[in-house]
Formats: sequence, structure tokens, C-alpha cells
Amino acid sequence: MTLRGRKKGEVVPQGVVLRLPVYFRYLTDLEARGVERVSSAQLGDALDFTAAQIRSDLSYFGSFGQQGYGYNVKELLEQVKHILAMDRDHSMILVGAGNLGKAIGSYDWFREQGFDIKAIFDIAPHLVGNYHGGTAIRPLDEISAYLGENPTDIGIIATPKDASQEVCDLLVGGGVKSIWNFSPKHLNVPEDIIVEDIHLTDSLLRLTFRLHEANED
Amino acid sequence: MTLRGRKKGEVVPQGVVLRLPVYFRYLTDLEARGVERVSSAQLGDALDFTAAQIRSDLSYFGSFGQQGYGYNVKELLEQVKHILAMDRDHSMILVGAGNLGKAIGSYDWFREQGFDIKAIFDIAPHLVGNYHGGTAIRPLDEISAYLGENPTDIGIIATPKDASQEVCDLLVGGGVKSIWNFSPKHLNVPEDIIVEDIHLTDSLLRLTFRLHEANED
Repeated sequence: MTLRGRKKGEVVPQGVVLRLPVYFRYLTDLEARGVERVSSAQLGDALDFTAAQIRSDLSYFGSFGQQGYGYNVKELLEQVKHILAMDRDHSMILVGAGNLGKAIGSYDWFREQGFDIKAIFDIAPHLVGNYHGGTAIRPLDEISAYLGENPTDIGIIATPKDASQEVCDLLVGGGVKSIWNFSPKHLNVPEDIIVEDIHLTDSLLRLTFRLHEANED
Repeated sequence: MTLRGRKKGEVVPQGVVLRLPVYFRYLTDLEARGVERVSSAQLGDALDFTAAQIRSDLSYFGSFGQQGYGYNVKELLEQVKHILAMDRDHSMILVGAGNLGKAIGSYDWFREQGFDIKAIFDIAPHLVGNYHGGTAIRPLDEISAYLGENPTDIGIIATPKDASQEVCDLLVGGGVKSIWNFSPKHLNVPEDIIVEDIHLTDSLLRLTFRLHEANED
């Protein structure tokens, strides 16, 4: 496996993958504020990581920093975007056009960063023909024909949980290789399909668990 | 530290905490389908964990399973809810009533599970007075007075990123001990404040990273 910018043959640990988007967000802010360089200590302070962890994380992708100078913000950001494959476009479709689907479909950041929601599908006749974020809502029974004509990188599932496995099967059957799942359900997929979950309920439950744990210290 | 149902003096590892809500969701489904008992092997198959991991996770909270019988679904679910502090009510307020705030405020599951959004705040005059999920939207400048009169467990931030730190400071200043942050920004908080992030952008970037990593194997 050789990922662009990565030391050849080395697998990037999960923890580093989890932190890359955090670097991306912060470096984007720095660049927008006109900041030209940043040290690992400054990055660490801002993100609550240690400077050593930051140097270690970034070392997976080559040698960027210079002793006594730190990192060039613009170069480091370009490199992080490259590593995250953000320098290419990704086609997405969204299934589920309720409140959550509307929020996802209207999120400007996606389009700004080359994540284009090309089509939206819903089963509810009264939603079909409406627009979210400039994209028309189509009937769900057209999804397989759509995918046959429009190879798609990412399928977003924002349906109720009772529908999500069936929608997932339709997406996988249509050749979609990665699923971004917002439904509160564990999806069963073939081994070569990537699923990334956003489970609102799980996140809230972790928060309350930690809240009560802290209160009982 | 003694958490209800937990072996005294033992800290629950982060990995176990991350999996508890997954158990909760699946057990809720089993109970709704009238299933009375489940083995660790069945739980493992459904959730892509090993049976050994499931037995190990649940052992942190006492001894539930019986050799050859498995777990009683109803009892195990009650216990998981107790561990997650879901057998008490939690008061929440939501700041930010845009598309994402509307989706959060209208999410029935929260109210069904005792997570009541008591008030919604926004800075935009044209949103004030509207309702999301039955709760009126109030002007943001009333938030400190509100928190003075209504102690609140959880503050939800669904504002644009440029506003989120300021909103976070208002919440913390008003005595809110835990923040559920949907804005794509790292929040700086005092040590005793709990922050749980839902970063949509980070999640999508992890997905595309893994997609391209897989394609280049």
C-alpha cells in the first residue's frame, strides 16, 4: 500500500487518521487569518495535543517541519488536503430528505470542498420534486437506474432506521463503495465496503455517561 | 469513583464507553421485536464484535449472563440504561436554529428517551418566535438570564463555527457542565467541562481517506 505522501509501506494508525481532519480544520482557519507559519507547540496548544504527538503524526506523511521555524501553514495544509484526497472531487448522493437530510443537503461546506451531492432520493411522494441545497429530490425507486448511469463514490443515508439497511443494500448493489450512515442502526455490508457512522444517539449517550461519571467522582 | 452497577473502584475503559450505546440500540431493537434472550455469540454476529469482547465489556458492570442461557434482553437493557444514566431525565438547551438545529430540535428520539430540549436560542431575529419540535426559539441575549433560572445539564451548539466559542463561553458561564458541539471547531473549555463533538466534516474526511486508501491497496 502506498498512499500519496506517505512513507512507503507504512500503514497509518487509526488514531492518526482520526486527527488528520482536526489538523485540516485548524490549518484552514490559520490560512484564512493570514498566518504563515506555526510551530508544533502552537498547534498542540490550540488542539489539546502534545507537540510530540503532532510531530509524530505529521511524520507519517514526510518531513515538513524545520527546526526553529515550524511548519509553513500553506504547504502543510496543501499536504494534508492531498493526504485526505481533498484535491479531487467526490460524487455523493443522499437518501432521506427529512429534517436531517435537509441539513446535510444544505451544508455549504461540502460543495465548497468538492463534495458534490449530485442527487437526493426519498420515498415520500410529497417531498419528491422539492429542492435541498439546489438539488432536486427524486423518488427512491429511481435510485438503481441512477447509479447505473452515474457511478457514485459516497452514499449518504439519512433515513429512519427501519429503512436504512434496505437503502444500504440498494447503494451497494449500485456499485457505491462507501456509505456515510446517519441512521441509528448498525449496517451489514460486504467486506470491501467502507461505512462511516454518525450516530447522534450514541454520541449523546456517551456525553451523559461521562457527565454522570464526573459527578460521582 | 463508584458508578452504579460498576465494579467498585474500576475505571471503565474508553473503548467500552464507546460500545455501550451500540449495545443499547441493539438491545432496544431486540426488545421491540419480543426477543427474550440473546447469547454473546449472537450479539457479536449482529454488531461485528467478538463474543469474548462482549463478555468482557459487560463484565465491567456486574455479572449478567448465565452459561448456556445467554443474557435476558429486558434485564440487560435495563442495566445498560442504568449505566448510561438513561433512567433519569436530562435538561438540554439548543443554540443555533438553522437547518442543523432544526434537525436536532425535531429528533423525536431525544424526547422519547428523557432528553428534553427545554429552550432554543438563535441570534437571527427572523427565527425568533418560530418553533422546532414544539419548542419556541428565543433571542440569544436571553440565554444567561434563562440559565440563571433554569439549571441545565447539556448545552447543544449548532451555530456556525465563528460563533461557537462565544456561545460555549455563555453556556459554561451559566453553569452548564456538558457541551454537545456540532460546530466544526475545537472548543476551549475549563477542565471540568465535558465536550462531546459531532464533527460532520471530520467524519466525511475520514470516510474519503479510507476510500482512497482502500482503492490504492
